[in-house]
Amino acid sequence: MKTIYKKSLKLHKKHNGKLSVESKIKLRDKSMLSMAYTPGVAAVCKAIAKDKNKARDYTIKRNTVAIVTDGSAVLGLGDLGPLASLPVMEGKAALFKEFGKVDAFPICLDTKDTEEIIKIIKNISPVFGGINLEDISAPRCFEIEERLRKELSIPIMHDDQWGAATVTLAALINANKLRGGDIKDLRIVLSGVGAAGVATARLLHSYGIKKTLFIDSKGVINNNRKNLTKEKISLLKNSKLKNTYKDLPEALVGSDVFIGLSKPNVLTKDMIKTMAKNPIIFALANPDPEIDPKIAKEAGAFIIATGRSDYKNQINNSLVFPNAFKAMLDYNIKQFNNNIFIKIAEALAKSVKNPTTNKIIPSMFDENARKNVYEATASMKDNIY
Amino acid sequence: MKTIYKKSLKLHKKHNGKLSVESKIKLRDKSMLSMAYTPGVAAVCKAIAKDKNKARDYTIKRNTVAIVTDGSAVLGLGDLGPLASLPVMEGKAALFKEFGKVDAFPICLDTKDTEEIIKIIKNISPVFGGINLEDISAPRCFEIEERLRKELSIPIMHDDQWGAATVTLAALINANKLRGGDIKDLRIVLSGVGAAGVATARLLHSYGIKKTLFIDSKGVINNNRKNLTKEKISLLKNSKLKNTYKDLPEALVGSDVFIGLSKPNVLTKDMIKTMAKNPIIFALANPDPEIDPKIAKEAGAFIIATGRSDYKNQINNSLVFPNAFKAMLDYNIKQFNNNIFIKIAEALAKSVKNPTTNKIIPSMFDENARKNVYEATASMKDNIY
Repeated sequence: MKTIYKKSLKLHKKHNGKLSVESKIKLRDKSMLSMAYTPGVAAVCKAIAKDKNKARDYTIKRNTVAIVTDGSAVLGLGDLGPLASLPVMEGKAALFKEFGKVDAFPICLDTKDTEEIIKIIKNISPVFGGINLEDISAPRCFEIEERLRKELSIPIMHDDQWGAATVTLAALINANKLRGGDIKDLRIVLSGVGAAGVATARLLHSYGIKKTLFIDSKGVINNNRKNLTKEKISLLKNSKLKNTYKDLPEALVGSDVFIGLSKPNVLTKDMIKTMAKNPIIFALANPDPEIDPKIAKEAGAFIIATGRSDYKNQINNSLVFPNAFKAMLDYNIKQFNNNIFIKIAEALAKSVKNPTTNKIIPSMFDENARKNVYEATASMKDNIY
Repeated sequence: MKTIYKKSLKLHKKHNGKLSVESKIKLRDKSMLSMAYTPGVAAVCKAIAKDKNKARDYTIKRNTVAIVTDGSAVLGLGDLGPLASLPVMEGKAALFKEFGKVDAFPICLDTKDTEEIIKIIKNISPVFGGINLEDISAPRCFEIEERLRKELSIPIMHDDQWGAATVTLAALINANKLRGGDIKDLRIVLSGVGAAGVATARLLHSYGIKKTLFIDSKGVINNNRKNLTKEKISLLKNSKLKNTYKDLPEALVGSDVFIGLSKPNVLTKDMIKTMAKNPIIFALANPDPEIDPKIAKEAGAFIIATGRSDYKNQINNSLVFPNAFKAMLDYNIKQFNNNIFIKIAEALAKSVKNPTTNKIIPSMFDENARKNVYEATASMKDNIY
């Protein structure tokens, strides 16, 4: 790990950051300049002033996404602030380009005020065809996404929520296929109810999986708890199970699935042993999972997935956002919704031709999987209104 | 002209806008990804969180400029709004790259509120090493630039002001050299006191040229006028002449120089004939100058310059901003000021080895001139505090 950190620092210093802004048109002589810039460009400006839809033809808006953060929840490192979050946003933009051919640009905001963030994003939106919210801490991320989806007419997606939720659902579809039984009968304990946890629960509920129990940093979530956020209250309403258990170990007894989007080492060998036969363990905390995959296997886990690239079954957001956004932009689809993410999850699951316990999800370098994400998103162009 | 407009529309449609965001690092395998993105990037984020100066080494901030507009004064077309201004901002970004190797990105704001614009620019500033304000109408542009220079610690330049002012001063230096006499003795009538006009007047005053008279859309500017902006009041204070004339024709009698940053055809043959011997005429309104250069010559103009590329002596902002910003960024110079612009103007004037009446300013394709702008700016790194 230390070597990777050193190499990473060296790589970033060598290039002075990872992105460059390039002109698609070379301005080598007066004639080209008079078309790309003044006086010719005046005709382009006037055409857009007359019909704003022309911006899709004549400007970068059609293929450009803003990656917006306030630096309040950077990776697993917490509130590092906007400047220190920039290397992550640049990396995200590089992934957008490499895997989705989307032009993405980082916007790191020096404010954590929900209303101000919403207002700024609305005010900078003319240049962009979509907004990827990133590393904004819960619960502000929910309000910001919800409001922007209502108040702006371009696709908005908080990737920490929907990237994680979509790939988790995809992995669960294949895991359940291998294990057998109706996916809707799965009894699932979700540990960690931040951005990714809330979205994952919402997507499971939308998919018809309703036997869900929730654990957050204060313990079990149930109606006896005071000061629950509106997101947590809504999760309880949509669950078929009453979470009256004392704690995580009690809730796990007889459960089929553990999904951890929380913190290292909250799950133990003994807890897994109390779960239903052939339990599915998704230990997705980064960089250190809720349990060491080896120990989980020893305890009887049927399938184990993590967020890490050095273990089998990596649950990785990068499978979703580049081509989901690319299709939204190409087909001018107005807004993301749960149906789109379910469609993408199903497409990702199907991308693994012969799932095994060590291969329930495609690699992020799988070109076919990326194509399937694109097509699944594009297929929703006519039926989401 | 119609042909250029048609070609321009076609060119923009072909490319869907002019800019692309590229990754300098190819993310082709897991190993590269682990350095450019997670987990390696965490070390980079932590290093910047500890010492924000490290952002110059590790991120795009060091070489990236925001081109910020509200679309209120797009070219000579007026208030087209932020979306319709995007083609101009993209063109500007292309020029930044082509001529200055600077990565520039357009930010088109959907608000014209001065305080809101200032706040947004401050809030998005973490990603940027400099801010190029563009096509923001007067007088808001003055307040916005002034406040941002005080409240942010990165270079801020409103190009419509300082690009025009700097190249105009450069041209005037060479024009006066050819005409003879002390430049400080020139009696100058400035027609048009918007963004470019105010900045040009301020730069002339800083340079020691104080015999200045001003004409705006309401006529002569003098102390009898009511409701003058604070910028116009300050110009009057810094001028050595009392502008008690009735109108432009009266003010021009005996004047050495006409600088037009106003509108087409305000200057006539007869007016030029009343000016001092060998008058200098800068008719810079775009796309149609204050007087046809041919007519100005017939009336006895010693030197005529316009903003157009199809006449001799083009006064073009593009000579300044790409390399002025590049040097500011490279040398981490904190803020633009009049001394820097004067230094650049002198360097541009000297870039023309043998000035003639048809060649008082370098071409924007003159590599040596661009190098001189860079070096003039860089030379100020130690002596502007």
